[in-house]
Amino acid sequence: MPRKPDPNNTRSNEIIRATIRCLARSGFSQLTMKRLAAEAGVSQGILHYYFRDKRAMLAAAAGHVMDDLDFRARLESANRRDAPSRLRAMIKASLAVATANREFWTVFMALWGESLHDGALAPINKATYARARKAIGGIVEQGVREGDFTPVNIVHTSAMILALIDGISLQLTFDKNFMTVASAERLCEKILFQHLAK
Amino acid sequence: MPRKPDPNNTRSNEIIRATIRCLARSGFSQLTMKRLAAEAGVSQGILHYYFRDKRAMLAAAAGHVMDDLDFRARLESANRRDAPSRLRAMIKASLAVATANREFWTVFMALWGESLHDGALAPINKATYARARKAIGGIVEQGVREGDFTPVNIVHTSAMILALIDGISLQLTFDKNFMTVASAERLCEKILFQHLAK
Repeated sequence: MPRKPDPNNTRSNEIIRATIRCLARSGFSQLTMKRLAAEAGVSQGILHYYFRDKRAMLAAAAGHVMDDLDFRARLESANRRDAPSRLRAMIKASLAVATANREFWTVFMALWGESLHDGALAPINKATYARARKAIGGIVEQGVREGDFTPVNIVHTSAMILALIDGISLQLTFDKNFMTVASAERLCEKILFQHLAK
Repeated sequence: MPRKPDPNNTRSNEIIRATIRCLARSGFSQLTMKRLAAEAGVSQGILHYYFRDKRAMLAAAAGHVMDDLDFRARLESANRRDAPSRLRAMIKASLAVATANREFWTVFMALWGESLHDGALAPINKATYARARKAIGGIVEQGVREGDFTPVNIVHTSAMILALIDGISLQLTFDKNFMTVASAERLCEKILFQHLAK
């Protein structure tokens, strides 16, 4: 019976990192348990002990990438108390991760693509998005409560903030020449603060 | 030597539609020339006559979906002359296609995922995005010229409009319960018109 991945377990972490490297190199369509075992330096038997199949690996890789993004966003906003500063820090951290770490998108695109036709991955993808909206919602809610932002529907506004960051990060990943990350950061801030202004 | 797909050719169109159905059913990772030939009702020899490999099929499918989106956006804005009406029509048409036609995303996610590690698909994906920004840019540029919108950087603003629509369409595709398409349409309009207001 495959074991639930334990974030403190070094070997499962090594396997997850190997999965992400394989995805970045050749995508989900080329991922096989055999190639993954070779990349992680373990036998296929060991691999199956930790993860049932490539789907389970993908779900674990997405969890790993989201944890990393959360960690960086928290680090970036650690010394900021007011909601506008926290929102700026979140935009900066998200764009930095999404544009500098190509493996971020290789994992998410695999998860998105598979979740459209895979009934087991769809709820994992849905939960990942709900988690991201909730993290942003905490900042928006604080800003409304403390009078920095105009009253808005927290869930809808969080969805739009996430949409703008996701969408522009994708375009910057696909094409490095039409806009700099710094310009994108400034323009995201401007558009969102215009909307949230009292 | 495989022939360049001709949009007026019925058989290549049939093959493209079969590709899109296969992608929607089981994703790019499960797409094989054999399965595709069966779905399209042609021999593998015929399939190879039209398209070299599954990559070429994916590129053709993406072109087909973009043409369809352009057509619907033009149809929606046919009787609208001013830029604000055209922008509203474009938002409405884009969200409608992206949320009602699941195959839209199955094609794009396959293209995105593969373009990250495939040197032949990356420029096709990049060009697809440049084309979308240019179409939106025409509306923004008209609005600025006619005094409906405040002067903005056309390319950057088009990128943000596309980002917001892309990003929220994705979330609505993954989860039908946190927000309605109609609410998303209204909120996209509100955020973008606040930014473009003089």
